[in-house]
Amino acid sequence: MIKEIREHRSIRSYKDDPVPDEILSEILAAGTRASNTGNMQLYSMVVTRDPGMREKLAPCHFNQPCAVQAPVLITFCADIHRFSLWCRQRGAEPAYDNFAWFVNAATDALLASQNVALEAEAHGLGICYLGTTIYTAERIARILELPAGVVPVTVMTIGYPALDPGLTDRLPLEGVVHYEKYEDYSPERIDSIWAEKEASEETVKLLDTNGLPNLARIFTERRYKAEDNVAISRSYLEFIREKGFFNQ
Amino acid sequence: MIKEIREHRSIRSYKDDPVPDEILSEILAAGTRASNTGNMQLYSMVVTRDPGMREKLAPCHFNQPCAVQAPVLITFCADIHRFSLWCRQRGAEPAYDNFAWFVNAATDALLASQNVALEAEAHGLGICYLGTTIYTAERIARILELPAGVVPVTVMTIGYPALDPGLTDRLPLEGVVHYEKYEDYSPERIDSIWAEKEASEETVKLLDTNGLPNLARIFTERRYKAEDNVAISRSYLEFIREKGFFNQ
Repeated sequence: MIKEIREHRSIRSYKDDPVPDEILSEILAAGTRASNTGNMQLYSMVVTRDPGMREKLAPCHFNQPCAVQAPVLITFCADIHRFSLWCRQRGAEPAYDNFAWFVNAATDALLASQNVALEAEAHGLGICYLGTTIYTAERIARILELPAGVVPVTVMTIGYPALDPGLTDRLPLEGVVHYEKYEDYSPERIDSIWAEKEASEETVKLLDTNGLPNLARIFTERRYKAEDNVAISRSYLEFIREKGFFNQ
Repeated sequence: MIKEIREHRSIRSYKDDPVPDEILSEILAAGTRASNTGNMQLYSMVVTRDPGMREKLAPCHFNQPCAVQAPVLITFCADIHRFSLWCRQRGAEPAYDNFAWFVNAATDALLASQNVALEAEAHGLGICYLGTTIYTAERIARILELPAGVVPVTVMTIGYPALDPGLTDRLPLEGVVHYEKYEDYSPERIDSIWAEKEASEETVKLLDTNGLPNLARIFTERRYKAEDNVAISRSYLEFIREKGFFNQ
């Protein structure tokens, strides 16, 4: 397996060392080599290195240590703005301000981001995706001065690792792959897919710390709660509507 | 730059040779090593190899030669179903049937897909992403028997390349990267970003074939037309609603 794929882990603790310009450029260029919709490159990568800007963005990521420490943050945005500007400048009428093109542009941004992650790791850097991006996208957009047609989809922290947390577990491969048709999961199969994760030392510790009887309830009652999920759904949907992805 | 990233191109013509099982497993396993939301792995990869199933799926991808020829198709799905089943089986109440979790699960599926693409290429295979996936997602879902909570986000064809089309061009890196703040594009900058692409031999040929005065109008009047964009937006949104991503 490609070394960077096999050894990928999320790095949440960084050294102060900056990322040299030429390495950053190579990493960003790797992002642009990913497949994208019609070779329209419907994304923008907004790089944050300035300490003042990092300080402004940190609360958008709940001041997680990785967001505070990392010398580089990249905000990957779905971007139909640049392409639409070009069209209008050529007397062509763009019609990309709709949901299908939110999906296309977000896809472009995310494929580029994964290339960036792997290329960063090839240079000895560590990365972490910040899922908080869609919680606070409107605030991020204001700080980065994103125009209509440009919305953050994910943010990645990049820096030299201070701590190596080791690989995290995954469900057995057969738990996430289906052949020919989606074979729905029997209760026995669900038990078997989660068995190793549920029996792990990490899970045992988590249950103890959280005072809950099983791992699933840690997800539903601690990590990703109904009220938050509903609030984030509403705010992100409203945000992409305001940014013009539901005009048509 | 990582070789597979640097040399990536979309392969649209395949040999008949099948992809050996052990290589396919390694490729799929590479997908699972990608970062994902809370290590919940909110995706499923549905593998199509059976000739009858490939024939059924081909029209969903407009019978493009690559979709017809490729010995393997992988449909990457956002999947909150498996995780929700597990939660309920443990007496936990999942609340992931909403838009935020469509975005999270689609993100998981797409990051996994890019690992799959690169790992396939590391084994001498070629891949092509099929943007048609969101045009016909409802039909794909019926063929693959996807339950509620599972929606196709992208499809990848995989096989041994019969023809190598060479690398495709990209906009200059500075055209898609912003430092600290999004610097909006002046008309001069738009001209400069697209200058090389517009002057290319390929563009000149395209204009001649299409009888249009510029490349932008090929996009808006031939490739991605307003009426199609609007129809796809409506049908995909309606589809993910039906599949339960707007319950809350």
